[in-house]
Amino acid sequence: MRNIRMVLEYDGARYRGWQRLKDSDKTIQGKLEAVISQMVERDTEVIGSGRTDAGVHAKGQVANFFTSSDMPLKEIQEYINHYLPKDIAVKAITEAAPRFNSRLNAIGKKYTYYIWNQKTPSVFQRDYSYHTPNPLDINKMKKASEKLLGTHDFLAFSSLKKSKKSTIRTIEEIVIEKNQGMLTISIKGDGFLYNMIRIIVGTLIDIGAGKEGIAYIDEIFKRGERRYAGVTAPAQGLFLEEVYYD
Amino acid sequence: MRNIRMVLEYDGARYRGWQRLKDSDKTIQGKLEAVISQMVERDTEVIGSGRTDAGVHAKGQVANFFTSSDMPLKEIQEYINHYLPKDIAVKAITEAAPRFNSRLNAIGKKYTYYIWNQKTPSVFQRDYSYHTPNPLDINKMKKASEKLLGTHDFLAFSSLKKSKKSTIRTIEEIVIEKNQGMLTISIKGDGFLYNMIRIIVGTLIDIGAGKEGIAYIDEIFKRGERRYAGVTAPAQGLFLEEVYYD
Repeated sequence: MRNIRMVLEYDGARYRGWQRLKDSDKTIQGKLEAVISQMVERDTEVIGSGRTDAGVHAKGQVANFFTSSDMPLKEIQEYINHYLPKDIAVKAITEAAPRFNSRLNAIGKKYTYYIWNQKTPSVFQRDYSYHTPNPLDINKMKKASEKLLGTHDFLAFSSLKKSKKSTIRTIEEIVIEKNQGMLTISIKGDGFLYNMIRIIVGTLIDIGAGKEGIAYIDEIFKRGERRYAGVTAPAQGLFLEEVYYD
Repeated sequence: MRNIRMVLEYDGARYRGWQRLKDSDKTIQGKLEAVISQMVERDTEVIGSGRTDAGVHAKGQVANFFTSSDMPLKEIQEYINHYLPKDIAVKAITEAAPRFNSRLNAIGKKYTYYIWNQKTPSVFQRDYSYHTPNPLDINKMKKASEKLLGTHDFLAFSSLKKSKKSTIRTIEEIVIEKNQGMLTISIKGDGFLYNMIRIIVGTLIDIGAGKEGIAYIDEIFKRGERRYAGVTAPAQGLFLEEVYYD
């Protein structure tokens, strides 16, 4: 059996997220599995590096599938891109080692959140960013973000009710920049809890807007409950940028 | 009467172009006039720097209107942006001299055409560029573009059947660049004939793809007829970037 690894780009707006659902054909995994199963003429599972929520986009999602087809890689990519809707694309395709698993072997991920921080809305970024007209203090946000670096229990920054699994994660890097009205927050870590990036972003926006001080982060960690953190920033600003493997 | 000047951004995909039509409310001018007329409680004409075709976008269209309203500028901008659909926005607003006319006073324009020149389609650029998978030779395109500079009769590069008005125009500058898969052609001139930019782009693509040589441009000028030039490149790749005034 061949193990085919793909790098995927998708516009999440029309989808209920990555993960296949029984009652809906509006998922990225579902669309891919339908096209690939048709191509190889048998039911084929596509393994993604992890779920993305409804409305979240990806520039570098990684997924793999097993097949006994002997179609050349280039043809596989062209076939899939031809039959996929235009808001999903296979950017790159390679043969992976037989034991490679997109989810189990992922050692880290980078997400970027886009905030359009101008009074006037942006026509061309309207579906790919969150519009926050009040000016955000990027230096305060940077200082607050340093408190998130390293290994912490991020339960309070997640929408998990409770969790049997560990909620300890490590954030390696947070880069906050502003470029011609677009403020971006890039977060790199070994893994993220449900809604964790979007709650971190909502919290950093509160700090940038002056509603909260930098110590707000310490307080949320100390209290350890979701309700003390900021709101969950909207899905449309979030992009899965890259998945890391050894 | 006050004369209000606006800089506009719009996504042309859903519209039948700039110019108001009697049988359709799907024009940019029509949308603006409806919102502004409602705001000032009387029928108000919006004068644009010129038409853009169905599907063509703008980052810097200029338009003006006259009003006796004493609403502050900031409130006017907020009102219009609030009631406009999300694919049209007023980026800037100023008081203009009483005799300023967006169309008559325009002394030049810059358009940019976006070509996604990669094998794999781009999910996020799909509505804002033209996908040409075969590699284009940018150096040949640059050399050919030099032949378009200066003052010429551009009738052969337009969709006009015949014209009583002059078809002589001056192109001041053409900049062709490639940046991470996106090839852009920016053209600055004193004015453009119907479909002129899109036909120039279609012609330059033929040259970049090796279907035609650089001398193709001379031949089209010499023959002087539309049918010898390249195809009209699709509207979705074209942006009106800027309008120039004295």
